[in-house]
Amino acid sequence: MHPLLDETHELVRKSAAEFAEREIDPFVKNMENYEYPRDLLRDMGKLGLLAPMGPIDYGGPGLDFRSEILTVEEVAKHSPGVATILEIQGSLIVDTLATYGNNAIKEKYLSKAISGETIISYALSEPCCGSDAAALESVARRERGEWVLNGHKMWITSGMNADAYLVFARTGPKEERHKSITAFMVDRNKCVETSPIHVIGLRGTGTAEVKFVDCELGDDAVVGEVNKGFYVAINSLNLGRTCVGSIGLGIAERAMREAISYIKQRSAFGRSLADFQVLQHYVANMYAQTESVRSLVYSAAYMRDKSLPDFLLYAHSAKLLGSRLGVESTRVAIQMMGGMGLSTDNVLEMLYRDAKVTEIYEGANEIILNTIYRFMEK
Amino acid sequence: MHPLLDETHELVRKSAAEFAEREIDPFVKNMENYEYPRDLLRDMGKLGLLAPMGPIDYGGPGLDFRSEILTVEEVAKHSPGVATILEIQGSLIVDTLATYGNNAIKEKYLSKAISGETIISYALSEPCCGSDAAALESVARRERGEWVLNGHKMWITSGMNADAYLVFARTGPKEERHKSITAFMVDRNKCVETSPIHVIGLRGTGTAEVKFVDCELGDDAVVGEVNKGFYVAINSLNLGRTCVGSIGLGIAERAMREAISYIKQRSAFGRSLADFQVLQHYVANMYAQTESVRSLVYSAAYMRDKSLPDFLLYAHSAKLLGSRLGVESTRVAIQMMGGMGLSTDNVLEMLYRDAKVTEIYEGANEIILNTIYRFMEK
Amino acid sequence: MHPLLDETHELVRKSAAEFAEREIDPFVKNMENYEYPRDLLRDMGKLGLLAPMGPIDYGGPGLDFRSEILTVEEVAKHSPGVATILEIQGSLIVDTLATYGNNAIKEKYLSKAISGETIISYALSEPCCGSDAAALESVARRERGEWVLNGHKMWITSGMNADAYLVFARTGPKEERHKSITAFMVDRNKCVETSPIHVIGLRGTGTAEVKFVDCELGDDAVVGEVNKGFYVAINSLNLGRTCVGSIGLGIAERAMREAISYIKQRSAFGRSLADFQVLQHYVANMYAQTESVRSLVYSAAYMRDKSLPDFLLYAHSAKLLGSRLGVESTRVAIQMMGGMGLSTDNVLEMLYRDAKVTEIYEGANEIILNTIYRFMEK
Amino acid sequence: MHPLLDETHELVRKSAAEFAEREIDPFVKNMENYEYPRDLLRDMGKLGLLAPMGPIDYGGPGLDFRSEILTVEEVAKHSPGVATILEIQGSLIVDTLATYGNNAIKEKYLSKAISGETIISYALSEPCCGSDAAALESVARRERGEWVLNGHKMWITSGMNADAYLVFARTGPKEERHKSITAFMVDRNKCVETSPIHVIGLRGTGTAEVKFVDCELGDDAVVGEVNKGFYVAINSLNLGRTCVGSIGLGIAERAMREAISYIKQRSAFGRSLADFQVLQHYVANMYAQTESVRSLVYSAAYMRDKSLPDFLLYAHSAKLLGSRLGVESTRVAIQMMGGMGLSTDNVLEMLYRDAKVTEIYEGANEIILNTIYRFMEK
Repeated sequence: MHPLLDETHELVRKSAAEFAEREIDPFVKNMENYEYPRDLLRDMGKLGLLAPMGPIDYGGPGLDFRSEILTVEEVAKHSPGVATILEIQGSLIVDTLATYGNNAIKEKYLSKAISGETIISYALSEPCCGSDAAALESVARRERGEWVLNGHKMWITSGMNADAYLVFARTGPKEERHKSITAFMVDRNKCVETSPIHVIGLRGTGTAEVKFVDCELGDDAVVGEVNKGFYVAINSLNLGRTCVGSIGLGIAERAMREAISYIKQRSAFGRSLADFQVLQHYVANMYAQTESVRSLVYSAAYMRDKSLPDFLLYAHSAKLLGSRLGVESTRVAIQMMGGMGLSTDNVLEMLYRDAKVTEIYEGANEIILNTIYRFMEK
Repeated sequence: MHPLLDETHELVRKSAAEFAEREIDPFVKNMENYEYPRDLLRDMGKLGLLAPMGPIDYGGPGLDFRSEILTVEEVAKHSPGVATILEIQGSLIVDTLATYGNNAIKEKYLSKAISGETIISYALSEPCCGSDAAALESVARRERGEWVLNGHKMWITSGMNADAYLVFARTGPKEERHKSITAFMVDRNKCVETSPIHVIGLRGTGTAEVKFVDCELGDDAVVGEVNKGFYVAINSLNLGRTCVGSIGLGIAERAMREAISYIKQRSAFGRSLADFQVLQHYVANMYAQTESVRSLVYSAAYMRDKSLPDFLLYAHSAKLLGSRLGVESTRVAIQMMGGMGLSTDNVLEMLYRDAKVTEIYEGANEIILNTIYRFMEK
Repeated sequence: MHPLLDETHELVRKSAAEFAEREIDPFVKNMENYEYPRDLLRDMGKLGLLAPMGPIDYGGPGLDFRSEILTVEEVAKHSPGVATILEIQGSLIVDTLATYGNNAIKEKYLSKAISGETIISYALSEPCCGSDAAALESVARRERGEWVLNGHKMWITSGMNADAYLVFARTGPKEERHKSITAFMVDRNKCVETSPIHVIGLRGTGTAEVKFVDCELGDDAVVGEVNKGFYVAINSLNLGRTCVGSIGLGIAERAMREAISYIKQRSAFGRSLADFQVLQHYVANMYAQTESVRSLVYSAAYMRDKSLPDFLLYAHSAKLLGSRLGVESTRVAIQMMGGMGLSTDNVLEMLYRDAKVTEIYEGANEIILNTIYRFMEK
Repeated sequence: MHPLLDETHELVRKSAAEFAEREIDPFVKNMENYEYPRDLLRDMGKLGLLAPMGPIDYGGPGLDFRSEILTVEEVAKHSPGVATILEIQGSLIVDTLATYGNNAIKEKYLSKAISGETIISYALSEPCCGSDAAALESVARRERGEWVLNGHKMWITSGMNADAYLVFARTGPKEERHKSITAFMVDRNKCVETSPIHVIGLRGTGTAEVKFVDCELGDDAVVGEVNKGFYVAINSLNLGRTCVGSIGLGIAERAMREAISYIKQRSAFGRSLADFQVLQHYVANMYAQTESVRSLVYSAAYMRDKSLPDFLLYAHSAKLLGSRLGVESTRVAIQMMGGMGLSTDNVLEMLYRDAKVTEIYEGANEIILNTIYRFMEK
């Protein structure tokens, strides 16, 4: 057990691991065929795995952030796609609703988001400006006491399948950048148009281009305060970025385990592959790097649990190094398995593609580096 | 023009580039849907692009190895899959037949292999021992003045679609390892069973598991001498490994060009992406590394053209560094394009997956490193 | 404050940092001229900084291992040389004496080793076999109820200046390898011959080749049990390897701080260097990697403090990644400072050389990788 | 023999290699003690090795640029310090004088610079702006028909020992940046003040801070045209940067050879070190990377010899990758030798320190990357 965890965390981990092996593994091929895991999410909701931090008052387990990232890590070992849906629902959405939602919003969405009855997408990125969120162009204009939302969002996880959307839109002049953005809850209905986007990995996550056309929203659809939506986003992104670190961690751990298992079973040149020193060093390097990133990710989550000030810097460092670790570890693990590692019958093939996405989503690593530097200067 | 090339080479390059842009580009999506480019290969054959080294006496252009690798490089910029089929047909197969084939074999296969009428697979790898070719288990036993071939081959490019196979099988005790292997030409017929293998990239190349069940072969099916098949293999592998280096080079060059083009068109934070110093350095690093590998690959090919002794070492170095370059350059280029780079609508997504295969096929890079060290010691 | 530390640890850190700035900094140039910091060590002893884990009964502070590594880290920011002497005295020697020493040995050496009155070298490495300790060739043979020690040790820190030596020698057949090694305490006297060794860094640490010629030792000179010396060594090496991780950490942190300070003061091309995105990313990468290694090193030390079983693996991972971090961070920091970073007037020049030693001493990183793999298999 | 070289080049290489082994090796320790190799340079001059490109009319060998870089490479294997002095004299100085010098300058300096009677420093860098040459602050003002030069130069190789200086100074408003710089020849005399600078490596090269105080110069001291000095500098820097690539190449080749020789002689764990696969892969990687950089460096030099347009890009790529190769290869070679590699008795220790300088001098690699990108855009 890692020093930053306690017995409760290990129970959560065990529970998530068991679920993943029993329920997610058999569904992985379906997702590879672009089927969204709608039932799985409901099942995870029932078990409290969909949103471990969900407040007890709303039917959630009321656990801490470390419980969230451990769940995400374990699930990522089996399906980084499910892990991605999970961390968005469980931290970006549920934490945002619990922290910033007004009572109406909480009543309407929070319990169902925790239980998996309602899936909510996090709709921030736009075609104009995936990396530069403060430049977003969706607009909610005030008309006859209502908000009328128009916008075009990209790369929206679960976008094809969501029941509702947490949408960030401009409620003031574009020149004010992050100071004129507001967050809204939008139900899926006729004003929402979705079309699927296929990327290299994370298949089956319902990633979509989502257009909002004249969606009419009342004041109670506002999450947090008007023109304060950017801070809502930032808060949730810090959670999300830590979670991406734990997805990378899960990918790397799984890749290493697969590779170790393979070299113990196979021979070449009359010897077990496990006797080749170069492969042993590949394993040892993966181990050391994985544990180093693990210690970082868990430190980040601990900091959030204790409201320590370095959380922001650690969250971004976790995203950066966790995503790189996933890419590098899957690359090396495939080398260890040769042709077999490349086969679409092998989980490494999927993990290698999925890992690449983590270097880009929730803030491309170049943006993460910009942000780390900026935070350091504060 | 690179110092190691002359005007003729540039004409070949131009011709290959034009063909690739005009004919291959429109077919890339078909290959991504696992369609084999049978007509394209015939067309390339007609233009002398399928086997630039094919001897003039057999209807080939009679060009040098640099012409071969330039063709492969240009094609790889558009489709590493076609480039792979090409280099196997054009160097592994055609050079082997021309060098080691008896007259009957040359008559029967060589002209048609050059013209694209006949596609021939190179059937060396086996499930037992992709990396350790000397341990292969296929057997051709002598029965009533004939050879009866039984064997199980894996990862065979064009295996699903080939008209014939160059098969390496054991013709003596397994303990003699590389000293009891013979090469045979086997026509596709009832004794050949194929089933498709899907790997992470190079889709549409007809990669297959191929089983030979009691194939009856005459003495004139032997390529080279009995029990000397390993040397036949080695000769062709040196060509093939250089070609893999040039596939990596083509992938890297294309990735860099795509990324440059993208950053010039897009803006973020109020500036052109091309003005961000970090992205400029990504480009400059890619450029320097690409030109370094280019100089190495062209040196290797020149050495082969002039029969210089360091060819073996350079061929393996070209494979090693070319394949790594492709992986790294596509990884970085995708970073430069963000989500757009990950989209399956973007060629980088394919190139990233294809590049990974080059680190493994025609000798996993770990085997290449073993071999380089062994050659150095000679 | 890092989650794995508490207020006491921070006090220890502060105390070490203050001492280092006040007392060590002015002496650094002397050490660069090969002067051994004998007085500094005595002063550190008086303040309880020489051996924070030294038992209270013997005048030590009785602190935990995290206090030790924090002291080492802080001192390493100013002088990796002093930090090296410190960690050997404070963990390899003092912990070994406290854990394995008989009463006579404790009485004679322990208090004085804690207070700095006595400096004791750890004499394990030999010319034959720095990496393969189980093959050592020094011999203690039994003669007339005494031990007669002959041996030749290499790379012995403080070897030129030590008052006594903890010597590992063979007390049985060489074929028994690690099962016939015994640890002895040997006072510096006529039987000990020393000659200085100069290496690329860590100047002023009195590194020496040490020969023991017919040293006569009583039974009470034995540390631990006869023929169990290898386990004595292993125990202490685990502490030492964690400490090397923290030396790398200290080096990296200092290098980053120097580089940041420099780019804020200097301009080029009409802008502050701190405004160049490439340099900002260098800093952000260094930060993330440093905090990742920090989290690992502190986890390792915490595991030792709580006797958790993964300590061995974490200790070796800390050595591996900490030493690499030091090398890479100083390399990058010098790039950020250009010619100024190379100047012998600049601390980075020394840190770059010192860092290189950490990749090799206390187990070359290749040995560390071998060991990690072996531990993983248990 | 590399494809880009011919027999003449190999003779030059052989001649340089023999000289280096016979004459430079015995002097290396003197240089490590900061002794400048004045006699060696004269001897090299006599043999035509100091400036292989020196025009025949001025007593030079009249060879091509490849002859220059091969000489530099061979010398760098023994002393990167001598190689540095050499490439500055042989390409930066002699090519500049031959190309831009008026007759008076040629008469006075060129023959003697070729023969080694006169050592001339290249005085461009300043404390203000090592990386941003166009911002230099030295000034030559016009007074009574003469130029009066005042300036402060830094990091000047051979600065302590030169007989004359090629000095770049401003002859117009600073705002005009590179358009108001002129090159002058300045004899060492009372107006020149020098003080030594010690950096991490390249000891014995007489690196200095050089101040010019009211140096009075006639019109015939101008090299090239007034206010066109920046182009004079650029031309020579392209040569120099290629040469730095070949210094890195020489360092890497030597490091690899030392490491190979060591692992063949030593054993551990009962086996020859040369039998450890990890060390074999270290060697094979070094080989492949070295040959790749070699092919790049020779391509660059060939391009210059044939006035091909990509020379600028290749020259900078050669500098970038050659310098990195030297750093990385010495780092790895030291790992292979363990403690022995760190010893100041071992040439690797020096090469590791020297290599670091090559990443910075003649344009820090970050400047090189900026420049490559800018050239690509042209």
